[in-house]
Amino acid sequence: MSVDPRLAALSINHKTVDGWSMPELVDGVAAAGLQAIGTWREPVAEYGLDRAAKLVRDAGLRVTSHCRGGFLTATDPAARAAAIEDNRRAIDETATLGAPTLVIVAGGLPDGSRDLVGARERVADALAELAPYAGERGVRLALEALHPMYVADRAVISTLGQALDLAEPFPVEQVGVVVDTFHVWWDPEVWRSIDRAGDRIASFQVCDFLMPIPADVLLARGYMGDGVIDFPPFVAAVEAAGWRGEVEVEIFNADVWAEPKAQVVETVKQRYLAVVVPG
Amino acid sequence: MSVDPRLAALSINHKTVDGWSMPELVDGVAAAGLQAIGTWREPVAEYGLDRAAKLVRDAGLRVTSHCRGGFLTATDPAARAAAIEDNRRAIDETATLGAPTLVIVAGGLPDGSRDLVGARERVADALAELAPYAGERGVRLALEALHPMYVADRAVISTLGQALDLAEPFPVEQVGVVVDTFHVWWDPEVWRSIDRAGDRIASFQVCDFLMPIPADVLLARGYMGDGVIDFPPFVAAVEAAGWRGEVEVEIFNADVWAEPKAQVVETVKQRYLAVVVPG
Repeated sequence: MSVDPRLAALSINHKTVDGWSMPELVDGVAAAGLQAIGTWREPVAEYGLDRAAKLVRDAGLRVTSHCRGGFLTATDPAARAAAIEDNRRAIDETATLGAPTLVIVAGGLPDGSRDLVGARERVADALAELAPYAGERGVRLALEALHPMYVADRAVISTLGQALDLAEPFPVEQVGVVVDTFHVWWDPEVWRSIDRAGDRIASFQVCDFLMPIPADVLLARGYMGDGVIDFPPFVAAVEAAGWRGEVEVEIFNADVWAEPKAQVVETVKQRYLAVVVPG
Repeated sequence: MSVDPRLAALSINHKTVDGWSMPELVDGVAAAGLQAIGTWREPVAEYGLDRAAKLVRDAGLRVTSHCRGGFLTATDPAARAAAIEDNRRAIDETATLGAPTLVIVAGGLPDGSRDLVGARERVADALAELAPYAGERGVRLALEALHPMYVADRAVISTLGQALDLAEPFPVEQVGVVVDTFHVWWDPEVWRSIDRAGDRIASFQVCDFLMPIPADVLLARGYMGDGVIDFPPFVAAVEAAGWRGEVEVEIFNADVWAEPKAQVVETVKQRYLAVVVPG
């Protein structure tokens, strides 16, 4: 099979083909002529961590990111300790999979809380506990700013600039940031923030932002080209900032999930070439 | 009727009691012992501009803001010229109503466009045409940052900081900003931005942000206390920045709109006292 050389940088996040087992993911991505995947904890655990690591390694694939750690905003001491411990396990998994990066989704407001400032401070405190642990295992925590519509229930990190504020107290090899077009495209400061990010960029993810926003706002992601994002300026910006890693495609979308998975991978390849890195 | 003196600062935006005619709004607000309203163009036009101005004046009410101008992102020259002309009419109306402030909602991406940077530049260009016209009539344009979930279809101004960047080239009496808790509460830079805003603050609006976000994302607003926003820090911040004007309550919510209007006004009063300016 002849493969466009631009596809060497394309990574398929497991969520895009949600429902595939680990072997189906690895086989499907390799069969499509691709070289990289983003993994999620649950399917890795289901298949077995060591088996999953061997499966990926034997197939010659790279794991670009492991999803996900975080949810670090609890006020209850026991819940907080459990979250820290769970993140240590996620860091261990990331190292075993040979992935450089664990994606961190900060977590939202605790139930009934309106203290957004406090929740953000607790994320910073938790990072101080986790960053050295990650660094010792050769794993970088990648702080993901999520679109502000998810601030209350999912991630109190809302902009790339805020993610950088949280990352910069730590060594660059311990804490970086995710640039996910879906989450940051609206931000008037995004170009300045990407430039500022430089070698803090630990993951570059793409998918489109669909309009109108569907009833389940978690599923507003779509194939590149189906929404309102102009992708090439983002590719140019992260490259100008020094990013030489993969472009990972992560799509949460009920219609995409209903399609045959191999067809989803083909559509992602076509859209990546036509819309993300055209010409 | 004995009225809590804190209510002197409470203004009822017409949208909160959508469905009331202008006389019903004026009578209902006065009957509730309140002194201020925010008006909308359509009901004012329906009742007649000069009649509406007289109605408000005779009732001794203040108009804190007139809603709304803007929608300044068109690329088509004819559509753009029509938008500028329509904004001049909105400025004239604002002056006739004796309101200090015309709220400006920037507008979203033109149909089929993905050029967010260009849309934002066109807003800045349009302001340069409108600001002197407003200033000559004693009207201040109040740029409203809308929550980033509305950037594609409604307002390419997404943060208070961006609104200030757009406002600051103009004299402070010509272009200010709206601080609307619903739209800005998530922003990690909001405290710095409110402080920076200072006497650029031209309108302070409150309503709560409901979770989960309803299927129609335009209707995610609720009574103060029903959502996730902590209001007193916002009151303190705008006061520290120098704001001495009203607190306008603007709620878009299908359930609220289905209630008897006088009851809505009572609930707003109670929630304002209990949740926004407690103690």
